[in-house]
Amino acid sequence: MLENIKSPRDIKELNDSEINLLRDELREKIIDTVSKNGGHLASNLGMVDTTVALHRVFNSPEDTIIFDVGHQCYAHKLLTGRYDRFATLRTEGGISGFSRPTESEHDIFYSGHSGTSVSSAYGVACGNLLNEEKNYTVAVIGDGSFTGGLVYEALNNAGRVEHSRLIVVLNENEMSISQNVGAFAKYMTIIRSKPEYIKMKAKTEAVLDKIPLIGKPLARFILKVKTDFKNQLYGSTLFEDMGFRYMGPFDGHNLSQLKSAFETAKLIRKPVLLHVHTTKGKGYDHAERQPSVFHGISRFDIDTGEPLSKGTSFSEQFGDFMCKAALSDRTICAVTAAMSLGTGLKGFEERYPRRFFDVGIAEEHAVTFASGLAKSGMKPVVAIYSTFLQRAYDEIFHDGALQKQNIVLAIDRAGLVGEDGETHQGIYDVAFLNSIPDVKIYAPSNYEELKEYMKKALYEDEGLTAVRYPRGKEESDPDDFVHSYGAYDVYGDKDADMAIVTYGRISSYALNASKELFEKGIKTKVIKLGRIKPIDERAVEEVFSAKKIYFFEEGVRSAGAGEKFALMLLEKGYGGAFDLTAIPDCFVPQASVSSQLQRYGLDKQSMIKKISE
Amino acid sequence: MLENIKSPRDIKELNDSEINLLRDELREKIIDTVSKNGGHLASNLGMVDTTVALHRVFNSPEDTIIFDVGHQCYAHKLLTGRYDRFATLRTEGGISGFSRPTESEHDIFYSGHSGTSVSSAYGVACGNLLNEEKNYTVAVIGDGSFTGGLVYEALNNAGRVEHSRLIVVLNENEMSISQNVGAFAKYMTIIRSKPEYIKMKAKTEAVLDKIPLIGKPLARFILKVKTDFKNQLYGSTLFEDMGFRYMGPFDGHNLSQLKSAFETAKLIRKPVLLHVHTTKGKGYDHAERQPSVFHGISRFDIDTGEPLSKGTSFSEQFGDFMCKAALSDRTICAVTAAMSLGTGLKGFEERYPRRFFDVGIAEEHAVTFASGLAKSGMKPVVAIYSTFLQRAYDEIFHDGALQKQNIVLAIDRAGLVGEDGETHQGIYDVAFLNSIPDVKIYAPSNYEELKEYMKKALYEDEGLTAVRYPRGKEESDPDDFVHSYGAYDVYGDKDADMAIVTYGRISSYALNASKELFEKGIKTKVIKLGRIKPIDERAVEEVFSAKKIYFFEEGVRSAGAGEKFALMLLEKGYGGAFDLTAIPDCFVPQASVSSQLQRYGLDKQSMIKKISE
Repeated sequence: MLENIKSPRDIKELNDSEINLLRDELREKIIDTVSKNGGHLASNLGMVDTTVALHRVFNSPEDTIIFDVGHQCYAHKLLTGRYDRFATLRTEGGISGFSRPTESEHDIFYSGHSGTSVSSAYGVACGNLLNEEKNYTVAVIGDGSFTGGLVYEALNNAGRVEHSRLIVVLNENEMSISQNVGAFAKYMTIIRSKPEYIKMKAKTEAVLDKIPLIGKPLARFILKVKTDFKNQLYGSTLFEDMGFRYMGPFDGHNLSQLKSAFETAKLIRKPVLLHVHTTKGKGYDHAERQPSVFHGISRFDIDTGEPLSKGTSFSEQFGDFMCKAALSDRTICAVTAAMSLGTGLKGFEERYPRRFFDVGIAEEHAVTFASGLAKSGMKPVVAIYSTFLQRAYDEIFHDGALQKQNIVLAIDRAGLVGEDGETHQGIYDVAFLNSIPDVKIYAPSNYEELKEYMKKALYEDEGLTAVRYPRGKEESDPDDFVHSYGAYDVYGDKDADMAIVTYGRISSYALNASKELFEKGIKTKVIKLGRIKPIDERAVEEVFSAKKIYFFEEGVRSAGAGEKFALMLLEKGYGGAFDLTAIPDCFVPQASVSSQLQRYGLDKQSMIKKISE
Repeated sequence: MLENIKSPRDIKELNDSEINLLRDELREKIIDTVSKNGGHLASNLGMVDTTVALHRVFNSPEDTIIFDVGHQCYAHKLLTGRYDRFATLRTEGGISGFSRPTESEHDIFYSGHSGTSVSSAYGVACGNLLNEEKNYTVAVIGDGSFTGGLVYEALNNAGRVEHSRLIVVLNENEMSISQNVGAFAKYMTIIRSKPEYIKMKAKTEAVLDKIPLIGKPLARFILKVKTDFKNQLYGSTLFEDMGFRYMGPFDGHNLSQLKSAFETAKLIRKPVLLHVHTTKGKGYDHAERQPSVFHGISRFDIDTGEPLSKGTSFSEQFGDFMCKAALSDRTICAVTAAMSLGTGLKGFEERYPRRFFDVGIAEEHAVTFASGLAKSGMKPVVAIYSTFLQRAYDEIFHDGALQKQNIVLAIDRAGLVGEDGETHQGIYDVAFLNSIPDVKIYAPSNYEELKEYMKKALYEDEGLTAVRYPRGKEESDPDDFVHSYGAYDVYGDKDADMAIVTYGRISSYALNASKELFEKGIKTKVIKLGRIKPIDERAVEEVFSAKKIYFFEEGVRSAGAGEKFALMLLEKGYGGAFDLTAIPDCFVPQASVSSQLQRYGLDKQSMIKKISE
């Protein structure tokens, strides 16, 4: 069935049994592919039925359907002509795990950071209004995204424009609930526990009509009660207060209910918030039972649900450090933005629940909140992925650095991230943090350094300090290399004409490259920067007499550490050659990390090749 | 009266007539000072009474009072020991126009960007809980700030923690209403139009008790209605849905009502949102009548309310350009984040209301929304001050640059901003935009360039393009200088040994400096960069043979254009000297722009001095 679907038009005329077969095949294909390639599983399985219903009622691409974050767009991809290529999901040159316009006219925006869909959909809808086009714009967004402020900003704006043919489908899959991140989650529970509105409507109106009117003041009063009560019943006030017509909650797995709901929504001439409730992991037992584990997952065994790769990681080591540190220091707090599992803080959360704060997908608040914690004597450690930290740029600046508060940013997934592609690269944080005064940045290259620099950040440095470390595991250094855990390390031939400067994960490649080059008779001196902001003047002096300096940076070239090093050299009057190998001014698509490193000349072999030439 | 107030303790025991005198004196002092020094007037006048009430009920600094943005903190400053120095408001070395911790223990955070107070207050409150301290934390925040998502993120988190002794005072002064920015404003109107809750409570309960119970089903029904109706009455659902106890609205100028409200709020053991209604500009006719004009204002005549300095500006010229461009191009849209007046877009708003979008203080949404507009064929121009654009870093990256959408960022107040100080400097945008791939940046130095580069951005360049220009007026260039409106201009002696490279406003100083140096017999060649990202390779080649290059940058040194220029020189094998004069890695306090330029060696005289030495 599925392989014959070349466009959403092909599913409009299918009968019930064909549709059911299609849904099964969609789930099978998604489970099979994610088990091999990794990806987002639970939310994608949950959205299969709603996606089918959306494509039966709306006409993509004339109608615009925008999937927030892209955690829920796999079924959409399979129904929009990408079945044949779906096995390449998240691999080099293959289908992206997120929406990607270059892949299909049915993907409107790149989406990888949450909460953008309502804003961009509202933009499209306004454009359509100005162009006098009558197409619909649909934003499909999970309840997890509703913990972020951008959605609120968008709702606040979008709610005022009538006739905009804008429909927001809120997919409530209890993501925000399981994570217990605040009032919105609680509110969702309340809405769902209420009787189903559609059925209630007729019944209640009948009862209201029967209330006797006794005396004039009471009559007026009852009339008012009627109105207020109707509002209570037919409007979920939170959304209605924002100017939306609320509809729901609907069973996100019941196709006929969804179809009629979407068709009704099309008739309403004001923005609609249509609430569907789905089960994360629907159709795959392991995922239904452990939706958080199967939210984003690496390759796993379909039968057992067990991951195929194991072992420790920077994230896990960070979590261990935090638990130990919190034991002896009662002021240490951990703040995370809906990434307790990913940042390795699950153990901390369990052992120190009062000092653990999962703020939801709200990176901005995470940092400003941490500033408040610091003010009252706590030592907040904010653990966020490099890419998501971009959201908090202004707060790092204003509520962190400017306040001169002791806040530690633990930046996970720093550097190339591999399969998540353009929207998730951690190669920009050094560059954007470089623009903020007084921020210190450490770039540990192994677990021990991670812990030592965390200690420095917590107990030696003043102000806002970032410790950034890559996704995955540490690499091994040459046996004769000794870490100083200081601002920089020196390795190799002290008087070599050629110097290598680098930092972070790839410094292991540089050290090993230097060793191999030495064995080939080529002498190099390696400066491994531990602290990359500010760069120690002495590190620059160490290479000042070199005839040629090779700087390797697993980060974007523009505004990075290499550029800064170049300025320091030039202002000191350096007269030798300088060669910066960094990631160019571009967006890096998905591939394995090793392939990405190789592409940009940042692996050991590329380093050896470049230097020996 | 006021001059004897050395700390908030001094106002606790004042009698009614003394307090009334105090309020008058506070207003007088604020009006007088702002008329001389400029500043935020209307909101500060509105908050005089509520601030007095706050300091009578709470004990600062043991209790923490945080004023959001700082637009409302003048009375607080005057009551917390800063009366003597208040005449220095916003001047070099003087009192800041915003909260500033280095000034007083009563100022907890630097605050200049809106919407942070609830997050930081919640952080302080959580710290107090962990420390088992029983102090109160009060966030005072205007309704304008409620259009920003950060507040929502904070409420969503803060609402779940009981016993946190957190009180959010929502100062509704119709800022969001006058600007008509969305659903929240409308919601505020609805709340205020309702009868006063406190008085209603007793009355309504009496009525409810009198409703006859006719038959069993109806009895159950009425019981439910009672509960729902009570919720409607006593809870403003939006805030109650977020987990707060709502109280209000109270008259923000009625001291006894405010006092009892604050005292009640202290007794409630869950987070409280206390809604006060104030009149912007209260006590000064001109400001009451034109609150938007008197929101933030330069020096003015107290009697007439007329500004003392007049004349056109980059902002006004930008607005004129937009109006003309929109006339011939029906796809041009303007997006602003609550800065219609400041960005010069008032005329556009009036002439093209359908293509004008004021999104509220929601810079993130502004950019993502613009991305949607662009997708549907519009040409959105997002006009935001440099400092506030920091809020949209991730959206510029993801929803702008990555999408390869044609979006123009009109960055106003780029460069040093003068009296607004640390929290408002526009000296970081080049640095942070440098870290985002594919972004183009133009830095016009006069009105004509502004228009020409806007045209390029709209009609020649692909993708996201920024045009950044300073606060205030253009400077005059030497008569013999001819603008090319290209990527760079060349001036002076083509074969000079010394070269000057610069961009933006200060390029006028550089050009004039070069002319004066020539008259002294010192030859220089000036490269004035028009486009600073990417920097044209040919501009680097132009100065490659110079023995010494002076780069002047009105922007932060780290990650700026100078650093990039240095790398380009070094990689090409430049062997001469290089000297970068830029703003160091710091936060720049208030002073006049000319004084700030001088401090960092960026005025004409400093340039001449440096080069002739």
